[in-house]
Amino acid sequence: MDEILEIKPERIENDFKILETFTDPEAPWTRRAFSLQNKEARKWLADQFRAAGLDVYNDAASNLIGRRGGDGDQVFMMGSHSDTVIEGGRFDGIVGVLGALEIARCLQDSDIELSLPLEIVDFTCEEPTVPISPVGSRIIAGDITQKDLEGVITPFGETIHKAIDDLGGDSSNISKAKRALGQIAGYLELHIEQGAVLEKEELAAGIVTAIAGPCRGTVQFIGQPEHAGATPMPDRKDALVAAAELVIAIEKIVTTTGMSEENVGTVGWMNVSPNMINVVPGQVDMSVEVRSTDLESLVLVRKSLEEEVEKISEKRKIESKLTWDHLEDPVPLPLFMQDVVKSAFTDLSIPIKYLPSRASHDAARIAPITPAGMVFIRCLEGKSHCPEEWTSMDDIVLGIRLLGQSLLRLNENFLKNKKG
Amino acid sequence: MDEILEIKPERIENDFKILETFTDPEAPWTRRAFSLQNKEARKWLADQFRAAGLDVYNDAASNLIGRRGGDGDQVFMMGSHSDTVIEGGRFDGIVGVLGALEIARCLQDSDIELSLPLEIVDFTCEEPTVPISPVGSRIIAGDITQKDLEGVITPFGETIHKAIDDLGGDSSNISKAKRALGQIAGYLELHIEQGAVLEKEELAAGIVTAIAGPCRGTVQFIGQPEHAGATPMPDRKDALVAAAELVIAIEKIVTTTGMSEENVGTVGWMNVSPNMINVVPGQVDMSVEVRSTDLESLVLVRKSLEEEVEKISEKRKIESKLTWDHLEDPVPLPLFMQDVVKSAFTDLSIPIKYLPSRASHDAARIAPITPAGMVFIRCLEGKSHCPEEWTSMDDIVLGIRLLGQSLLRLNENFLKNKKG
Repeated sequence: MDEILEIKPERIENDFKILETFTDPEAPWTRRAFSLQNKEARKWLADQFRAAGLDVYNDAASNLIGRRGGDGDQVFMMGSHSDTVIEGGRFDGIVGVLGALEIARCLQDSDIELSLPLEIVDFTCEEPTVPISPVGSRIIAGDITQKDLEGVITPFGETIHKAIDDLGGDSSNISKAKRALGQIAGYLELHIEQGAVLEKEELAAGIVTAIAGPCRGTVQFIGQPEHAGATPMPDRKDALVAAAELVIAIEKIVTTTGMSEENVGTVGWMNVSPNMINVVPGQVDMSVEVRSTDLESLVLVRKSLEEEVEKISEKRKIESKLTWDHLEDPVPLPLFMQDVVKSAFTDLSIPIKYLPSRASHDAARIAPITPAGMVFIRCLEGKSHCPEEWTSMDDIVLGIRLLGQSLLRLNENFLKNKKG
Repeated sequence: MDEILEIKPERIENDFKILETFTDPEAPWTRRAFSLQNKEARKWLADQFRAAGLDVYNDAASNLIGRRGGDGDQVFMMGSHSDTVIEGGRFDGIVGVLGALEIARCLQDSDIELSLPLEIVDFTCEEPTVPISPVGSRIIAGDITQKDLEGVITPFGETIHKAIDDLGGDSSNISKAKRALGQIAGYLELHIEQGAVLEKEELAAGIVTAIAGPCRGTVQFIGQPEHAGATPMPDRKDALVAAAELVIAIEKIVTTTGMSEENVGTVGWMNVSPNMINVVPGQVDMSVEVRSTDLESLVLVRKSLEEEVEKISEKRKIESKLTWDHLEDPVPLPLFMQDVVKSAFTDLSIPIKYLPSRASHDAARIAPITPAGMVFIRCLEGKSHCPEEWTSMDDIVLGIRLLGQSLLRLNENFLKNKKG
């Protein structure tokens, strides 16, 4: 299929420049969900959606939605999020929102009608600004219900109810934002990789196969704080040696269990107590995080990790506690959606590269109710969630072309299935 | 040899009660060197020394010295320190000072003359209140000279010169406090074990064989901070995994190198950066401490540790830096001084138990210029340098009896050698 959308790089570049002005003057590139900057950006985005000929509305979850193509419950959907973490992310989420906007403009420019209405979405609060995030995409999928909102307070000291209402939502009726299975005929999202796989292979873009589920926990080892000089080695209950064994074990477990190339495991945070040079550490608290794009591998990894904590604890006669704080299954993206995206790559003569997403996205949250597909573009040195996050305008433009072509291929696929 | 000194438990108990009043009302059992409480305690101690019939003076290093038995350069010496760390140590050092005082009183009570004058000493600033500590015992041994005092400031904001002078010293002439080799015919110190070896074997007291030298360093591993989800395992430069390997390696090195039962090794302090659950740690700074009572083992342990840092660094392609901040050789106590102390144990029908000291003491600092012997008494659960530090009055009294008997045995030994 030929490329018929005429993506205009200068429009996109201009969008980025303006959207970047809605950031916290105190912290670089910061636009947290529910912040003043988030509200201002939303107003500007709504104006751009309108200028692209879209009907603009906020659903009950305060997702900002621009719609093209008349009535009907069933739609195609594209989107991502414009909110960021603190100090970062000029491209994370944003390329997906501005990309969808550019495609809506191109559809308008060329007066192209799809076989279903199209909705482009800036999802509310994808980043972990509140504990229940991502908020908008989870509400659409029915994964957050009314009672999950109870007691949730934003970092700005408001209830999430007030924060959602202030963004144009209807927090007392959030189930209205829920879409039924089949109502979204297909969902597409463009995103930066947030890793360095594409960059290392000198590729600008790739097709996402699956989205890893992060499983996060906390491990506590409680030994005995003692004089580091006066306590013979066999008499020690050194919590840090136990913790070190677990750090090493996690690396070994993820690299040897199941489909090991799909797994990652990290101890990112560790607190040693009393943390004094001449005292045997009496307590260590540490995070454990394991992710995999393969469910069976993830289950095995988690089981091995739990056994390892027990084993270390028994061997060293040290108390231990492992608490899983957050468990998420990996989300495989449907093969036919991967095929839809692949066709777009082929149409544009872009080398085919499949890769998993180890970071999570709105696509993962909406996937339970709709077939989702994702296009990744490379980013500099895999850096993300930091002021240094960077993607070139050339790669962004290519990503948007692939997203647009994927939409047309999705439309074609839908028509074919309807007829067939 | 019979026990001829009549140790009076009620006097000792009373000393402890009064000395404990000279502590910081803000922090339990705290009497830091050069503090107001240190000065007040010194005044009271000087009065007690005088009441025991001693001639009292401060040497140039402001060590508080009580002398019995007339003129002459050569002396027997007993002592320890009455200063503490923050929040701790009701017995650490103090049993040695009050023990020496009680023995001086007993010598006066029974009108016993030794073959040399006896000096009992409350050494100035044994605890790490200033970087050059222990101050008093190192000056006596000539290990701190005038120029080492330059630029040293106490936690109370004074120069160490002023602090020493305020305690009765002569900071511009500290070499006057130095004793020549042979001037101290023998040194004895009673101390709590600060470990749990005696308690575990249900023994009240032991004979110290050697004092371990602490070697302290800092290791820095610099890897690459990256997204914990998006960075495949083979692409990581995880500084915490490197640090964990070193923690495990240190345990292995000290327990398998040289006279391994003499070694200890500890990572007590660790700082992980950026220390976030979803970021691969980019940098770890950590302390390393190794001690041994055996010099050869200590040398081998240090060498292995240095090699291990290199090995981990190369294997993981992570930058590393090991800096030794403090190196101290182990101090073996002379066999004839161990024998002197052993005779005292035999005289009092106390089971013979030899053990090393893995904490350092004034005895270690004065050992280069005099034969030193030490008696250890047990302390509760090995706890020290904390408000929970505890030793029973029964064990203290026994310790003082052993110290006194050791002094008489030292005197006997000195006479024998003089004749022989």
